[in-house]
Amino acid sequence: MKVITRIADLKRLRRELFEPVGLVPTMGSLHEGHLSLVRRAREENPSLVVSIFVNPTQFGPREDFKRYPRDTKADMALLEKEAVDVVFVPKADEMYPPQFNSWVEIGGLAERLEGASRPGHFRGVATVCNKLFNIVQPTRAYFGQKDTQQAAVIKKMVAELDMNLEIVTLPIVREPDGLAMSSRNRYLNPDERRAALVLYRALTLGRRLWDDGEKDAGKIRREMARMIQKEPLARIDYVSIAHAETLDELDIVEPPALVSLAVKIGGTRLIDNILL
Amino acid sequence: MKVITRIADLKRLRRELFEPVGLVPTMGSLHEGHLSLVRRAREENPSLVVSIFVNPTQFGPREDFKRYPRDTKADMALLEKEAVDVVFVPKADEMYPPQFNSWVEIGGLAERLEGASRPGHFRGVATVCNKLFNIVQPTRAYFGQKDTQQAAVIKKMVAELDMNLEIVTLPIVREPDGLAMSSRNRYLNPDERRAALVLYRALTLGRRLWDDGEKDAGKIRREMARMIQKEPLARIDYVSIAHAETLDELDIVEPPALVSLAVKIGGTRLIDNILL
Repeated sequence: MKVITRIADLKRLRRELFEPVGLVPTMGSLHEGHLSLVRRAREENPSLVVSIFVNPTQFGPREDFKRYPRDTKADMALLEKEAVDVVFVPKADEMYPPQFNSWVEIGGLAERLEGASRPGHFRGVATVCNKLFNIVQPTRAYFGQKDTQQAAVIKKMVAELDMNLEIVTLPIVREPDGLAMSSRNRYLNPDERRAALVLYRALTLGRRLWDDGEKDAGKIRREMARMIQKEPLARIDYVSIAHAETLDELDIVEPPALVSLAVKIGGTRLIDNILL
Repeated sequence: MKVITRIADLKRLRRELFEPVGLVPTMGSLHEGHLSLVRRAREENPSLVVSIFVNPTQFGPREDFKRYPRDTKADMALLEKEAVDVVFVPKADEMYPPQFNSWVEIGGLAERLEGASRPGHFRGVATVCNKLFNIVQPTRAYFGQKDTQQAAVIKKMVAELDMNLEIVTLPIVREPDGLAMSSRNRYLNPDERRAALVLYRALTLGRRLWDDGEKDAGKIRREMARMIQKEPLARIDYVSIAHAETLDELDIVEPPALVSLAVKIGGTRLIDNILL
């Protein structure tokens, strides 16, 4: 497994890789969610690149960039086991040299939900992915559906800027009790870890109401919110039932609908979603 | 010479082109300025693609998008003579399908001079060039120094987004009397055509003052402006002496300095520049 820190070195190495090339972009602190992407990418591509980069530009000034978990040693061991060919671990000033001022902005889609709660977040995500795609020139890049809006934004960018790769998305991986895997779960103390279950329980409630014939999106949202509000450690950021592609909020639930939420558990902001 | 109108067709054709591939992006109405780019690109690359696309997103709402000169038939004849391999002539809705909302924004550099006078202009330029570079995947793309700020913005985008091509810039081509070649010169009536000479005369004055030892940028700007104001058909948009790379305005002239101006001659906005 080759470990590369410089863009120029990776571009040079890229010429020697067998096609097709798979890329799994990550911020490290790898868990089974990431590994599901790595394994699928490994199956589908003779060459596999994984990037580890905690991207400063997708964090707001009051967010958790500084304390975001970093554990490169453990990450490397995991990736070695998965027979990854190349790990790209650039420093921040390699990706963003002084005077850097080139940005990819996706409108519409990227302004809702996470984009509304985290201004500038998707600009940072789109820009860093655009750079990674140009550096690695992958045939396919793999993203998890936990960050479902991120995947939609990246797909829109690739389509509309005519980039030459395919975006593959894979299902959320959950803990046995239903909590969606996330690097931020490491922030939770035991009480918060128990309280965090309310996200998946609320999504499950939403699905059950829909399965039972409820079509009124407002009513389902309210029932979900009520359940979350009963959990003392939880504070709702949003509960959304939206068209799965446009992310326009729905009045009447019709598939494909994305039920998604962002909830603060103590000081930790968690997101989760299901598709109807 | 192959004429292609669809992005997917050009991407397919691209795989069969010999490397390296040159690209000359144009808005058509070709003149000797464009042809100097085409000829250089022809010399340097076994495969040569020229695009003709009057890009709506780089025109402001009160600008000349609708009346911008279009003469595809004449353009095709000129490109055929230069032995161009592929001409890409997409329709606007091929480049910008409904719901299009992905933009490349270059900060700093792109906010001065033309960027200040034409809000959104460089966002349109950067976005369309980003798309063209992804569609054609050229080894080199060629730009004229008449749009010197455009070339600087594109170079910054390519460097900072890690795109895989080289930007080549070539000198301004002038009419025998000094007027910089421009598709917009076609707008000028005979009186305006005579008045338009004031741009190059003012630049020449600026250079002469500098050659004679004047270092005070403000003084040179004022002398140039005074000359232009004497021309009744001319109205100054800006007269600038700036650092050639950052485009920061200078107090004391030191090379590399870009002397540039934008002047309205009747209803036609013209730009020109020289390097000190």
